[in-house]
Amino acid sequence: MGQEVNYSELLYEGKAKKIFKTPEKEVFFLEFKDSLTAFNALKKGSFENKGIVNRDIAALVFDYLEQHGVKSHYLKKEKHNGMLVKKVEIIPFEVVVRNVLAGSTAKKLGLEEGTPLSEPLVEFYFKKDELNDPFVSEEQMRIIYKISEKDISLLCELALMINQGLKELFHRIDIELIDFKVEFGKDLQGQILLADEITPDCCRLWDVKTKEKLDKDRFRRDLGQVKESYEQVLARLQKLNIRKG
Amino acid sequence: MGQEVNYSELLYEGKAKKIFKTPEKEVFFLEFKDSLTAFNALKKGSFENKGIVNRDIAALVFDYLEQHGVKSHYLKKEKHNGMLVKKVEIIPFEVVVRNVLAGSTAKKLGLEEGTPLSEPLVEFYFKKDELNDPFVSEEQMRIIYKISEKDISLLCELALMINQGLKELFHRIDIELIDFKVEFGKDLQGQILLADEITPDCCRLWDVKTKEKLDKDRFRRDLGQVKESYEQVLARLQKLNIRKG
Repeated sequence: MGQEVNYSELLYEGKAKKIFKTPEKEVFFLEFKDSLTAFNALKKGSFENKGIVNRDIAALVFDYLEQHGVKSHYLKKEKHNGMLVKKVEIIPFEVVVRNVLAGSTAKKLGLEEGTPLSEPLVEFYFKKDELNDPFVSEEQMRIIYKISEKDISLLCELALMINQGLKELFHRIDIELIDFKVEFGKDLQGQILLADEITPDCCRLWDVKTKEKLDKDRFRRDLGQVKESYEQVLARLQKLNIRKG
Repeated sequence: MGQEVNYSELLYEGKAKKIFKTPEKEVFFLEFKDSLTAFNALKKGSFENKGIVNRDIAALVFDYLEQHGVKSHYLKKEKHNGMLVKKVEIIPFEVVVRNVLAGSTAKKLGLEEGTPLSEPLVEFYFKKDELNDPFVSEEQMRIIYKISEKDISLLCELALMINQGLKELFHRIDIELIDFKVEFGKDLQGQILLADEITPDCCRLWDVKTKEKLDKDRFRRDLGQVKESYEQVLARLQKLNIRKG
């Protein structure tokens, strides 16, 4: 029997994940929690095994994207509800890609949820809970936050590449990818990698046939069947036999 | 004695201006009202002669900018508190240029008012009172509102050109231009012109020596001396002997 490593030094605890140090300098242990939050944690919940379900979804999606040319921080699954990831410094902007209007942008612009877009729309939000993650323009990122034009272009390019991959992946399991949020980080060599997670916590996923939501909107909007929907997404992904990246 | 024209057909009444038809198809009569509003008209006020003061400031600024290569809708001053302008169709985005952080962007990003920017920041806001004029990115303008990349670039370029001219103009009268909002319109030939107005209603103007505000923030923030500040800006501009454009 292999010896179990204990990850005891907590580096960071977020709303849905914890990050621990590991014996290896360039590797972190990422633990997926069972908790579920919305509206900047004003609404809180959880369900049993959510951590494992999301860990498994994230692992499959990272593997799939790796095969499609998108490098991420993901290394391998680890005991319980964790995974080992490459150490990165998170770039403090959430990158959102929308194929169909929904959520905050639909609301802000007074447009109907479900309005399709003629091409994918990339948006940036400055990660700052106290400020409610404000929407920022590329000009604001460049002039106020000193993010280089090159990095902004690269983030857009990677986000669109991820969108293309995910759209195809979900389409194969009868799910329409409405939008998603990703985060990126820089590794010790300065390379930009997809980081954080891709799970129903940060995607809008609508069943192609029934139009049913299979994502965190079920929790946000009290639609019920939250656990079953997350498990449904995992079960469909598992049928695809995605190779280890 | 010249015959007085009556402009009786009101086309539009805004918070601070009215637009009337004139006998000439391509010309509108723009009347500056004495009213003053803030926070999307939740706060209302007025002062005597505000309309005339703002009309005179706008006329001087348009003349000055015309001489510096910026074409506007302004034709000439007209009786009372009005001016004749070229008919344009307003492009429904407010264009803001900031030299120093203040107002909504400073607040949204949790940064201190008065933080200087390394270069002028151009921002766009979708003109829609019911939505509180939401901040939009260039990508949102292009993909959702179908504004061409060429027009967006031109708006940015014109906004920066206006900023350069205004900074120099105000510097000559010991005023620092913190930020301003402009609107553009397309004339019947499809040419983009500076439209609306440039007055202390839509600029932040700080006295270089005393740092005193000489703009609508005096009204927004109940600082008093609103009328005197607007009149001060006009008096200083009048000393410059700006030629008719």
